[in-house]
Amino acid sequence: MYKYFFTIILVLALINNINAQSNDSLNIRKFYNEALSNGKAYNWLEYLSNTIGARLSGSLQAEQGVAFVKKELGQLKFDRVFLQDVMVPQWVRGEKENAFYKPNTVGALLPVTICALGNSIATGQGGLYAPLVEIKNFDELEIKGRKEIEGKIVFYNHPMDPTFYNTFRAYAEAVNYRWAGASRASYYGAKGVVVRSMTLSIDDYPHTGSMGYADTVPKIPACAISTKGANELSDAMKKYPQLQFFFKQSCEMKDSVLSHNVVGEIKGSEHPEEIIIVGGHLDSWDTGKGASDDGAGVVQSMEVLNLFKALNIKPKRTIRCVAFMNEENGGKGGERYAQLAKQNGEKTIAAIETDAGGFSPRGFTFKGDSMQIEKIFAWKKLFEQYGLHVWQQGYGGADIDHLSDQGTMLIGLSPDSQRYFDLHHAATDTFDKVNKRELELGAASMAALVYMISEYGLK
Amino acid sequence: MYKYFFTIILVLALINNINAQSNDSLNIRKFYNEALSNGKAYNWLEYLSNTIGARLSGSLQAEQGVAFVKKELGQLKFDRVFLQDVMVPQWVRGEKENAFYKPNTVGALLPVTICALGNSIATGQGGLYAPLVEIKNFDELEIKGRKEIEGKIVFYNHPMDPTFYNTFRAYAEAVNYRWAGASRASYYGAKGVVVRSMTLSIDDYPHTGSMGYADTVPKIPACAISTKGANELSDAMKKYPQLQFFFKQSCEMKDSVLSHNVVGEIKGSEHPEEIIIVGGHLDSWDTGKGASDDGAGVVQSMEVLNLFKALNIKPKRTIRCVAFMNEENGGKGGERYAQLAKQNGEKTIAAIETDAGGFSPRGFTFKGDSMQIEKIFAWKKLFEQYGLHVWQQGYGGADIDHLSDQGTMLIGLSPDSQRYFDLHHAATDTFDKVNKRELELGAASMAALVYMISEYGLK
Repeated sequence: MYKYFFTIILVLALINNINAQSNDSLNIRKFYNEALSNGKAYNWLEYLSNTIGARLSGSLQAEQGVAFVKKELGQLKFDRVFLQDVMVPQWVRGEKENAFYKPNTVGALLPVTICALGNSIATGQGGLYAPLVEIKNFDELEIKGRKEIEGKIVFYNHPMDPTFYNTFRAYAEAVNYRWAGASRASYYGAKGVVVRSMTLSIDDYPHTGSMGYADTVPKIPACAISTKGANELSDAMKKYPQLQFFFKQSCEMKDSVLSHNVVGEIKGSEHPEEIIIVGGHLDSWDTGKGASDDGAGVVQSMEVLNLFKALNIKPKRTIRCVAFMNEENGGKGGERYAQLAKQNGEKTIAAIETDAGGFSPRGFTFKGDSMQIEKIFAWKKLFEQYGLHVWQQGYGGADIDHLSDQGTMLIGLSPDSQRYFDLHHAATDTFDKVNKRELELGAASMAALVYMISEYGLK
Repeated sequence: MYKYFFTIILVLALINNINAQSNDSLNIRKFYNEALSNGKAYNWLEYLSNTIGARLSGSLQAEQGVAFVKKELGQLKFDRVFLQDVMVPQWVRGEKENAFYKPNTVGALLPVTICALGNSIATGQGGLYAPLVEIKNFDELEIKGRKEIEGKIVFYNHPMDPTFYNTFRAYAEAVNYRWAGASRASYYGAKGVVVRSMTLSIDDYPHTGSMGYADTVPKIPACAISTKGANELSDAMKKYPQLQFFFKQSCEMKDSVLSHNVVGEIKGSEHPEEIIIVGGHLDSWDTGKGASDDGAGVVQSMEVLNLFKALNIKPKRTIRCVAFMNEENGGKGGERYAQLAKQNGEKTIAAIETDAGGFSPRGFTFKGDSMQIEKIFAWKKLFEQYGLHVWQQGYGGADIDHLSDQGTMLIGLSPDSQRYFDLHHAATDTFDKVNKRELELGAASMAALVYMISEYGLK
């Protein structure tokens, strides 16, 4: 008999494993069924987008968002719902921007659609009027140098590359013109910059987004121009190289103000000290309604906890949803969460961020050590029937990235990326662009992954 | 030396195979790059949807669609562009439908939104006013029988099941209430039927679609009610079981009229006798603009040929795009194409249909013999980087299905299915619901598959 002992153990282990997998599969199915049948995320998002609206850090609406999320989580009677204080920058747009160009000395003033870039300074009351110089990339900027840049407005016309299948790659390749373009142009004496909007769609919506200033050069005002406006301006420059451009914006960075992250928690039944978080960011730009960026992520994260509650599935490890504040123009909420986690000696084993729109989920990106990766990738098969085929190592997300030195596995939800930049940071980011089922599938996918991590840990 | 001969042959074959794969991979990349950078499909679709609009079989707009596709294909100077004559049914909606219910004898008349189902008869000038009986499924219909059905209007309130990940499965499970509900109710003496719209969205748009009559029972009028209306009506029935329902529709099936399929062709350079077709259907329902169903499929099919031309890639086998007529309420165009193919002794080795919306492509369904399946599935790896992970055996499409007895491999493009039934056969099927990149990715995916079949055949 003894000689069969290990075989028997092996067979029992296999049976156990098959049962576990089949039980996991059934529980995962429950998360999807519940989300698709009785999910709350869509109605929450409608409220956040349509009743509250845009939630720029430091604004009244941002605080209304905090109160709403806290109230809704409170009503679900989780083990704990609490706020985390965080000081956030308060950048305000001021009055509506205005821009035109004048092709030649006798021609008319032709309006184009712009908006100030987030964190930019104003132009001053009289606006800024100067000759324009079109720049395709930073190499061209360096070649032109002070001689051709000084005293002018630099027009960065670097389109996102449509041939990347994943539009985030095209964004990553182009976004530095928005982020660093002002200071790089200022270095050569430019008086302002106009940046082609970060979108693949050719339309008349300017897309705002964060920019920053280097300490070493004068701050100059920066705005985004719609892609249609950029194409028109570029065509006009070919005919009228002496073209003059005007823009006026009265945005301002005010003193920082107190705001909050909102956290909901279900205590783990077996390993309460191990924490899994899932979050999105509650603040948004002021141009749209913050529906896809990132109201969707906030309500999906809330839904994850709601699904556990609704299904009466007790997680073995503690799970938290976090609505982060100030991802867009400072990242103070994510920073604060990580700081408090460290201060409180918390052990955050995994953090999932959803900040790429509420579109059909396609997979996840993972940042962790090779043992974590190996363990988690073994679960992939369970998720493929729900369209989650793309499991890749990569960036988790801006809010959770602050946890990277706490041994936390960082995970990003990867929805289909094709539509995201049509509405990113623009007036088009409204509730009607979010499909109910797609939103729910994203929530269920994260709930399923949280469940697996909660059941088996990551060691 | 001789003893190494087979090894050398094998190595050479392997190298050849690697080169072929890498060359294929490069060519496939070209199709995507061209579609995403210079694709024509989106502008074509805008014209079809917004300038021409809905294209019900037999309507003026359907013929305008034929003329437009023929003209555009003509301008691209393919080897051949031609029409195929086909007689199609001409069903017309007549004046706008009208419906209300009356909860009780003293209550008000409460309006609900309906539309006639395609191919239905009219109610007559005075409309139809009768007690309503709610039916969840055919089992319930049989149990109620003549005793409870006779003289009444049957209200089929069978919702699509939201828990299917693929919404087409939910549609397939529910659509027979639309298709066969009238005759099954008529069998028990019903005077008319009201069918819950085939959509997962809860809104106030009624969704039309084909229905048919059995020869053995009297024809009774059939309409679709919006999902919001259906829920409201069902709630009202619980309180007022004696509720009376009224609807009026003046639709009519007229005599068949002459219409056309449109075909464009690029002759194969090595095996011109082997034909690969790719098609969608040009006709649409009249409730929306026929953008997703199936303007998208038509322009994607046109784009496939355009991409070969633009890239100057000569197919080894003959490739054709086909804009089929009358898929929605008769299938006469697909039938006619297959009939002519047989009559002309054509050898259609593969047919791809795109009729599931212009959404992000996720894969294909294939219907063919095991050797064809094995050969084609070996190419899957080449497509995964473009999001095409789901290759399954299954239905190709309604238009191409008529070719199933001609040894043709039938293939359906499978886009993401989450949003399709929000707009299927309803007023919501408009151009703005189609994303340019998603549309282009679908076209490129089919072009890439056509390319592979054209290079290697299916034997």
